[in-house]
Amino acid sequence: MKKDLLYEGKAKKVYSTDNAEELIVDYKDDATAFNGLKKGTIEGKGVINNRVTNHLMKMLEARGIPTHFIKELSARETLVKKVTIVPLEVIVRNIAAGSLSKRLGLEEGTKLASTVLEYCYKDDALGDPMVNEYHIKAMNLATDEEIKTIADYSFKINKFLSEYLADLNIELVDFKLEFGRLTDGTIVLADEISPDTCRFWDSKTHEKLDKDRFRRDLGNVEGAYKEIMKRLMGE
Amino acid sequence: MKKDLLYEGKAKKVYSTDNAEELIVDYKDDATAFNGLKKGTIEGKGVINNRVTNHLMKMLEARGIPTHFIKELSARETLVKKVTIVPLEVIVRNIAAGSLSKRLGLEEGTKLASTVLEYCYKDDALGDPMVNEYHIKAMNLATDEEIKTIADYSFKINKFLSEYLADLNIELVDFKLEFGRLTDGTIVLADEISPDTCRFWDSKTHEKLDKDRFRRDLGNVEGAYKEIMKRLMGE
Repeated sequence: MKKDLLYEGKAKKVYSTDNAEELIVDYKDDATAFNGLKKGTIEGKGVINNRVTNHLMKMLEARGIPTHFIKELSARETLVKKVTIVPLEVIVRNIAAGSLSKRLGLEEGTKLASTVLEYCYKDDALGDPMVNEYHIKAMNLATDEEIKTIADYSFKINKFLSEYLADLNIELVDFKLEFGRLTDGTIVLADEISPDTCRFWDSKTHEKLDKDRFRRDLGNVEGAYKEIMKRLMGE
Repeated sequence: MKKDLLYEGKAKKVYSTDNAEELIVDYKDDATAFNGLKKGTIEGKGVINNRVTNHLMKMLEARGIPTHFIKELSARETLVKKVTIVPLEVIVRNIAAGSLSKRLGLEEGTKLASTVLEYCYKDDALGDPMVNEYHIKAMNLATDEEIKTIADYSFKINKFLSEYLADLNIELVDFKLEFGRLTDGTIVLADEISPDTCRFWDSKTHEKLDKDRFRRDLGNVEGAYKEIMKRLMGE
């Protein structure tokens, strides 16, 4: 079913198919951090991220969030709708951590008084700089209408995921989303939702169960990814 | 009339007066850049910034923007209403320059498709990091209502100043505003509007007539400040 390799990113390959409106995503075990400065492998990550992403996308679809997900094809491969990615990383934050802690002088773990949305312009050469709605409009990255939809979906996704994960003893600290446009312009959730793109902390011990174990050399990286799959999917 | 020195900043001193609701601002010739890393003196700057700021604040008051201005007391001193400063630098951008050009890879001089507002959290130790409306709310820096007022005033000030300066052959590239709360909570424009806080370019030659001459060692710094006073106030 795979035809041409269209794109190879840090964690995924994307292939064309016989259907011009559909693509196949193939998840890799490669891990990078700090805009590609740190490189490594997390064994089994591709399988876990594929399965966890699809599990969550299906739940979100059922709750009214349109996604690019069509069908899981294999342990690492998923059929998705072809989209044009809106060139923004949408970061949703419930608890201060990572770059936010550093930038605003908030101790990691500080509960934010209200949920924070951040937009970063997807541009590796510029280091994915933070932008606001005014920059997005001035640079024609998205329309006001699209940004309204994206913000609305992001808050809804945060509410659902936070509650769902809380029941599994996981705190959703922050996460990154990407959205795309279908050929008719409809905005849908794309990319992935996984320990690569979320900060998951154990609710009781605050142990990190995500890519920060790789970024910060905390050890037991594979174990954390497996633990997330186990809690979410019972295996 | 001056009582105690309450605060000495990079470019101004602020004194208490016999009236608890009023302060005296005293403009200095000291110049700093790059968060205090570069230091120098621009002879006559204090006089020019005091007079230019008051000239513009009076015009803005007449056009419905409340300001902290009460009365010019001397060449360097002005009586103002006491405010609690909202800890945000509000940056209004019409043309890409400075940090925006660098951050977003836009060539200096690129006309923006729409006006950009940016907020920076006033904190020298953190380097005045950029924040958005969500950070402002989560950190309780201002209420949603206050931010709405501040954004509304900023766009109005930009429209008026851009048109006024265009008639004087000056392009208003970008500028920084600060707002404060009176004791009753009313939001008013505070701080200054001067070649220290604005990028002014000659409309025809694009010559810089502002603090960038000091920041970038372009020479004729004093001449640029004098030229702005001359064009605005005919002297």
